Amino acid sequence: MSKAVFYHAGCPVCISAEQDLLNLIPENQVEIIHLGEEKSKVEAAEKAGVKSVPALVTPNGNVLHINFGASIEDLK
Amino acid sequence: MSKAVFYHAGCPVCISAEQDLLNLIPENQVEIIHLGEEKSKVEAAEKAGVKSVPALVTPNGNVLHINFGASIEDLK
Repeated sequence: MSKAVFYHAGCPVCISAEQDLLNLIPENQVEIIHLGEEKSKVEAAEKAGVKSVPALVTPNGNVLHINFGASIEDLK
Repeated sequence: MSKAVFYHAGCPVCISAEQDLLNLIPENQVEIIHLGEEKSKVEAAEKAGVKSVPALVTPNGNVLHINFGASIEDLK
């Protein structure tokens, strides 16, 4: 199975959601990408359908936007 | 550890999010509550901070609002 991808940008909302989700989802099933530090991955995130962070892209390609930390537009 | 609680209301957005999350979170760590069928639990959900469904209340009491299916006001 491919992994889920959790996109965040270091904002307080992101970090809180990250901790909460990682407590629930087994670590080997999710990849964490910090879009603030990896700007080159913003475009791929946007193509996957991510409109804001934090967001979780599931292995089947669905995007779960979780609360609201920052718009992807603000990360470009 | 107490369980996380996933609140939903049977809407398409809810069911999709439910499937996606349950594929990632071990089944014994999350309780599913259908607020459309269990109206008596709407008040408890609201007190926990749930403003819309689907939402996941984590064991430490944080509320993760996931996408947007319906407002809790519409479930009363």
